[in-house]
Amino acid sequence: MFDYETRLRQSLSQLKAEGRYREFADLKRIRGEMPEAIFHATDGSERRVTVWCSNDYLGMGQHPQVLAAMHKALDETGAGSGGTRNIAGTSRFHVELEGELARLHGKDRALLFNSGYMANEAALSALGRLLAGCVIFSDELNHASMIEGIQHSRCEKQIFKHNDVADLERKLRMVDPARPKIIAFESVYSMDGDVAPIAEFCALAKQYGALTYLDEVHAVGMYGTTGGGIAERDGVAHQVDMIEGTLAKAFGLMGGYIAGSDALVDAVRSFAPGVIFTTSLAPVLAAGAVASVRHLMASDAERRLQQHHAHLLKQSLHARGLPVVMSQTHIVPVIVGCATRCKALTDALLAEHDIYVQPINYPTVPRGTERIRLTPGPAHSPERIAKLVDALDRLWGRLELSRAA
Amino acid sequence: MFDYETRLRQSLSQLKAEGRYREFADLKRIRGEMPEAIFHATDGSERRVTVWCSNDYLGMGQHPQVLAAMHKALDETGAGSGGTRNIAGTSRFHVELEGELARLHGKDRALLFNSGYMANEAALSALGRLLAGCVIFSDELNHASMIEGIQHSRCEKQIFKHNDVADLERKLRMVDPARPKIIAFESVYSMDGDVAPIAEFCALAKQYGALTYLDEVHAVGMYGTTGGGIAERDGVAHQVDMIEGTLAKAFGLMGGYIAGSDALVDAVRSFAPGVIFTTSLAPVLAAGAVASVRHLMASDAERRLQQHHAHLLKQSLHARGLPVVMSQTHIVPVIVGCATRCKALTDALLAEHDIYVQPINYPTVPRGTERIRLTPGPAHSPERIAKLVDALDRLWGRLELSRAA
Repeated sequence: MFDYETRLRQSLSQLKAEGRYREFADLKRIRGEMPEAIFHATDGSERRVTVWCSNDYLGMGQHPQVLAAMHKALDETGAGSGGTRNIAGTSRFHVELEGELARLHGKDRALLFNSGYMANEAALSALGRLLAGCVIFSDELNHASMIEGIQHSRCEKQIFKHNDVADLERKLRMVDPARPKIIAFESVYSMDGDVAPIAEFCALAKQYGALTYLDEVHAVGMYGTTGGGIAERDGVAHQVDMIEGTLAKAFGLMGGYIAGSDALVDAVRSFAPGVIFTTSLAPVLAAGAVASVRHLMASDAERRLQQHHAHLLKQSLHARGLPVVMSQTHIVPVIVGCATRCKALTDALLAEHDIYVQPINYPTVPRGTERIRLTPGPAHSPERIAKLVDALDRLWGRLELSRAA
Repeated sequence: MFDYETRLRQSLSQLKAEGRYREFADLKRIRGEMPEAIFHATDGSERRVTVWCSNDYLGMGQHPQVLAAMHKALDETGAGSGGTRNIAGTSRFHVELEGELARLHGKDRALLFNSGYMANEAALSALGRLLAGCVIFSDELNHASMIEGIQHSRCEKQIFKHNDVADLERKLRMVDPARPKIIAFESVYSMDGDVAPIAEFCALAKQYGALTYLDEVHAVGMYGTTGGGIAERDGVAHQVDMIEGTLAKAFGLMGGYIAGSDALVDAVRSFAPGVIFTTSLAPVLAAGAVASVRHLMASDAERRLQQHHAHLLKQSLHARGLPVVMSQTHIVPVIVGCATRCKALTDALLAEHDIYVQPINYPTVPRGTERIRLTPGPAHSPERIAKLVDALDRLWGRLELSRAA
C-alpha cells in the first residue's frame, strides 16, 4: 500500500534542501505604532521589531476611521454574515462597499470576493467558460491567481511577453477576429514594481475586439487622484472592461473585488462557483473597507508621504551600491539571487537589527532572482530608512553578496 | 467582432427565464436581537424581518465573548494582517486559532484559509498534485468546492453513489492497490441534512490503503461533546486523515481550515497556491474565532437548544402535512420542486409575514427538488416556530403546492 507520509515528507525535504521551506514568522502588529510589531520566536521569547515588508502600504489597517467603523459594525450587526451572498449573507455594508468601489473605478457595478485571489480565479474562469471559444491572452508574469483562473476556464491560452505590446499584437493578429478574446494583465507587478502600458493594451483590445481584464491589486488606493489605480492615473480607466482590486493591501483589510459593466459583473456574480458557494465577506470587514476607500478617495496625504519614503529609500540604497531595482512605483526590490543567502540575510536582519523582512523565493519569483522586497509606508520615517540601509550595507559586506551590476 | 454584452445578457436571460436568477436580499442583522434583521427593499424602504435561513446556526456571530475578543483585537493590532501568511501576515491570533482547531479535532496541526471553499479547493488540488498517480473517490453529492479541488488536482476521479459503502468498495477494489487514493466526502450534507457512514468509509480506507478527507463544515461546533463534528460524535475522528471545517457557520465568523497530521497539513501549507498567494485571514476574525471555538468546546447549551428547536420545527411541519425532509440533523429542508413556485413562496413569506427564507435552486440542488432550507437556531423560539409553520401552511394551500408524499 502507498506510504503517504514518506511521499509528502520527501516533497517537504526537497523544499528544505533548496532553502525555500517557509516558516511563518509569528507577529503581532502594535496598533497605533506602525510599523512596529511584537515578534514571537519559536523558543517562546518576544521582542519588538520593525516590519519592512507589509502590504498594508498606507497603514490604513490601523487608521482610526477604519477601526471606528469596524467597532461600530460589530456593535450594530455582529461578526460574520451567516451565509452566502444569496442566502442571508448580503448586508447593508456589502451593498455600500460595492457602490463605493464602482464609483472609485467609474464602472456600473462592483462585486466582492473573500480575497483578490478568489476574484481573479472566479472572474476569469467564469468569463472564459461563458464565452465559448474564447482565447485568453495572458502576460507571462501574471499572478498565480490569474493563471489558476485562466486554467480553470479551460480556454485556449496565449502567453505574451511581459508588458510587450508588439508581442501581444502578433498573437492577437493570429486569432480569428470573430472569436471572443480576453487580454489579462496587471498594472503594477508586485515583485519588480514595473507598470503595464495600459493605454496601448486597450488600443489593441479595441482594434482586435478583445475584452481587457486588469489586475490593480498593488495600485488601488495608491495611484490616481482618488486612489483608483494606475488606470485612473493614466486616464484610461474607462477603456478597461474589468478592473480587479483588493481590500487587503492599500485599503488595509481583506477581500477582493471586480468592477465593470453591468452585464460583465452580473455574469460573474451569477455563474462563478467561487461567488455562489462561499460565505460572504464578514460585514465588519466591509464596513472598515467603506471607511478606508472613502478616506483614500478624499485624502492624498498618505499616498504622497509613501511615495516620498519610497523615493528616499531607493536613492539611499542606490547610493550605497546595493542592487535595488529602481522601479517607477512604491515597491523596492533588492536582489540577492540565491535562496539560502537571502534567508541568511533576513535572519541576520531580524537577529541583529530587529528588522523583519521576508525572503522572496521561487515560485513567487524566478530562481536566481531571489530578493527582499521592501515596502516603505508613511510611517517608515527617514530615521528608520537610514537604520535599514545601514544594516543592509553592513550585512551585504559580511555575507559577501553581489553589489549593483 | 464578438458582441460580449449580448452573449452575456443571453446567459443571464436564460437564468431569469428559468426563475433562478439571484437577487441578493439586502439585510442588516440586528446585534443582540437574533434572528431579527432590517431588510432594505429595492425601493429604499426598510422593515424588520425574521431570518430563517442563516448558517450562523448557533448565533455565535453575535455572542458577547466573540464580539469582545474582536473589539480587543482591533484595539491591539488593527484591521487586516497586511500580508500573506509567509510575508508579514501571520499573527499571534492565527497561531492560537490553529492550535485550538488542531486540539478540537485531535490532530497534529491545523491550517487556516480565507474560506471553507478555498480550504477544499486548495487542499484537494494540492494533495492530488503531490501524490502522483492518485485516484480521488468523491461522493456524488460533494460540495462544489470539493469538486473544483478535485478537478484542479488533475487526478483520476471516481464518483461513488451518495453515502453508498458498497459502491465505494466496488470502485476501490478496481484500482491498483499500490496507487495513492483519497476518499473525499462530507459528514452532514447541507441540503438534505443526511449523514455519511464515516466509520464504514474509514474501514474501507484502511483496507484499501486510502486517505480519508472529510468535510465537516455543517457539523463543526454542532456535534460531538466539544463541537468537533460528526466524527467526534461517532468516536472516529482519529481514523479520519484530514478534517476540513469552517469558521463561517456554527462558529459565526468567516474562514475555513484543515486539520490533520503534521506531514499532510505541512504539504498543503507549503505547496497550495491558494495558501501561498493570498492575504491571510484578518487577525480580528481569527481572534473572534478563538473565542467562539473555545466557548463551544466548553458549552453544550447552544447545541442542545438548537437541536430542540430543530426537532420541534420538523414535528410541527410534519403534523401539518408539509413535505419536510425528516433529517437526522439540524437542517430542515421543505421541498417545493419548482424554481418559480419556490420563489413565489419565499416572496409571499417576506411580503406578508416578514419572514426571510431564500429559495434554493439548481445548481445548489438538482432540478425538480427546489426547496426552502430552514435553519432554526437557539433564538428561534417555539412562538417563532409556530408563526413560521402557520405561514407556510397557509401559503402552501394558496399556492397549491404539493403536500407530503
